Amino acid sequence: MRIIVLGGDGFCGWASALRLSRKGHDVYIFDNLSRRKIDKELNASSLTPIKSIYQRIKVWNKINKKKIKFYKIDISKEILKLESLIKKIRPDTIVHFAEQRSAPYSMINLKTRNYTLSNNILTNNNILYLIAKLKRNIHLIHLGTMGVYGYDFSKFLLPEGYYKAKLFIKKNIINTKILHPANPGSIYHLTKAQDELLFQFYQKMYGLKITDLHQGVVWGTNTKETLLHPDLINRYDYDGDYGTVLNRFIMQAALNYPLTLHGSGNQVRPFININNTADCILLAAQNKKKFNEVKIFNQLTETFRLKNLAKKIQKLTNCKIMHHKNPRIENENNTLVAKPMGLIELGLKPIKLSDNLIKNELAVSKRYSFRADLNKIRAKSQWRI
Amino acid sequence: MRIIVLGGDGFCGWASALRLSRKGHDVYIFDNLSRRKIDKELNASSLTPIKSIYQRIKVWNKINKKKIKFYKIDISKEILKLESLIKKIRPDTIVHFAEQRSAPYSMINLKTRNYTLSNNILTNNNILYLIAKLKRNIHLIHLGTMGVYGYDFSKFLLPEGYYKAKLFIKKNIINTKILHPANPGSIYHLTKAQDELLFQFYQKMYGLKITDLHQGVVWGTNTKETLLHPDLINRYDYDGDYGTVLNRFIMQAALNYPLTLHGSGNQVRPFININNTADCILLAAQNKKKFNEVKIFNQLTETFRLKNLAKKIQKLTNCKIMHHKNPRIENENNTLVAKPMGLIELGLKPIKLSDNLIKNELAVSKRYSFRADLNKIRAKSQWRI
Repeated sequence: MRIIVLGGDGFCGWASALRLSRKGHDVYIFDNLSRRKIDKELNASSLTPIKSIYQRIKVWNKINKKKIKFYKIDISKEILKLESLIKKIRPDTIVHFAEQRSAPYSMINLKTRNYTLSNNILTNNNILYLIAKLKRNIHLIHLGTMGVYGYDFSKFLLPEGYYKAKLFIKKNIINTKILHPANPGSIYHLTKAQDELLFQFYQKMYGLKITDLHQGVVWGTNTKETLLHPDLINRYDYDGDYGTVLNRFIMQAALNYPLTLHGSGNQVRPFININNTADCILLAAQNKKKFNEVKIFNQLTETFRLKNLAKKIQKLTNCKIMHHKNPRIENENNTLVAKPMGLIELGLKPIKLSDNLIKNELAVSKRYSFRADLNKIRAKSQWRI
Repeated sequence: MRIIVLGGDGFCGWASALRLSRKGHDVYIFDNLSRRKIDKELNASSLTPIKSIYQRIKVWNKINKKKIKFYKIDISKEILKLESLIKKIRPDTIVHFAEQRSAPYSMINLKTRNYTLSNNILTNNNILYLIAKLKRNIHLIHLGTMGVYGYDFSKFLLPEGYYKAKLFIKKNIINTKILHPANPGSIYHLTKAQDELLFQFYQKMYGLKITDLHQGVVWGTNTKETLLHPDLINRYDYDGDYGTVLNRFIMQAALNYPLTLHGSGNQVRPFININNTADCILLAAQNKKKFNEVKIFNQLTETFRLKNLAKKIQKLTNCKIMHHKNPRIENENNTLVAKPMGLIELGLKPIKLSDNLIKNELAVSKRYSFRADLNKIRAKSQWRI
């Protein structure tokens, strides 16, 4: 297949692009390099020494049969260029990672809130419109988040996007199927709930084939592919805005920095390894089934209560754990029952967190510990205004 | 009360601002005059000869005890100016009409889709953020649309925003209350559904007091206040993008132009007179009740099937009726059962469409018929891409 990967220079995007290429697909990476730009803005950087997109692709194209092409383009703005590239490439599938993906960044101030809203929504609208205009059988695979669900009903198994429902009005009962009610916890998560409305709209109006992958917190660094050459190394975020919890814990343990738990640590979160993320993208891209609705998969493999996760790492490393005031406004005692039912059906083999895998990741962090800026670790963004 | 009216130079905004001022409130109009700018872009104009905002306000301030102040500001962009004005004015209430409000305009092309999305969402986010930041007891009254509901369940009475619901997952039954599922029919309507998610978010996070008025199609021209002086005349849109159905029919009948019915004409729509719009804004602003959720009212007074509405006007004027291909992608045989329950409870006295009121409006159209550009009447914007 010909597959365009929007945001293919990012953490999940790079890993997924290489997996697709390795599996024989023609991959075209579109990226405006905004993630690298935000690193500069925050004066932060990947713990791992990632190479420029040009160098990465040069090396990949030397060692792999299928070549990747890169186009520097801002999907949220460069509409004419985007249209002409899609016309030229004639993709079967577009995988869409090109959104601002940090909840804390989306909450820093009004400017980052607005950037997240406009970037994420316009990017989606541009893609959806052009698919409807140019060729309706392009399959759009979008990276959503499990954070759209909120935790109102999460003591029960979460559905994959939809509930069967009875609605009550006066004496009438309406039997129907509804998109799960959205209850996002940050502006970032909110944009993904707004994206869902866009998908419903374009699917209904123009019959687009859309898969929305509601992903959990991704952990790990490298994949089978990024390990093939040092210059292919994947990024590793540990700063207060872009560092996600499990990777941050591992990096902290490796550097003898007390693990930072926000609030009680009773929060439960969904997790997935970066290798499984790449697997899921491949499985979703190869999914030949026809949909008569937006297809939604929960993309996680397991859930952890954060304080238990911290203890797991403490057991291996004897690190300290520190509780800090929670910068978020959230229910710290949530429940979460979720399984990747649809992706398992497509063939996903879940990678579970094990002591061995934690040790591998600790080794990555130790290797690059000289690159760490400890001042960047603490969360600074506040949900309270 | 001190009340800021965002978008107070528009059709509903102007009528409402004057009503609030006449009832003794201190009114501050904020507007970027985008509606007048879009008129130029579309080479269209109000059938009625509206005066500049400066002239309008000068005249109003001469004849009315309470004075209106006007600030030219783009709420979607000028954040610092907006913040300092809110600090200075210390409003009790902000009435928010400052969104792109035409469904056909939102569907013309990708540019107008994106403008509608970013303008409407950023405008809301800026206001909500600043209210949360500056003074949490500012009541935000937002003009939404009944179009967020869609027509899936509309053979039953529509709720005012929320359903009691049972959700089913495996063997579990979840008893809850949900925001009605959104099923918007255009990008414009979609933005209002996305707005709803913003409201839910800011209400939950920061305890904001928000009223969302889900309004129907507004008809009529002048109000008691705009009739006080010729320079206060309200706008009358009849062009294919901004002209709404009942006003367009009346104008067409007055000019012996066959009434344009799109598709079968079996569509049912909700309606409200512009005087009632102003009433509803006043009632919502004076509503002292505390809310523990976003308060949603359906702002309509009656519903009509469009072909019956056309026949009603034909009976009075002997005009012709023409069916045209429907530019929209929509269910042409919808049902709609809706009542303004909450607003009636607050004191709304519904104005129903009568032969006399139609005759009044016909007279307005006839008086200004020399200003009409018949080439602008037909709908050009296509839902199909």
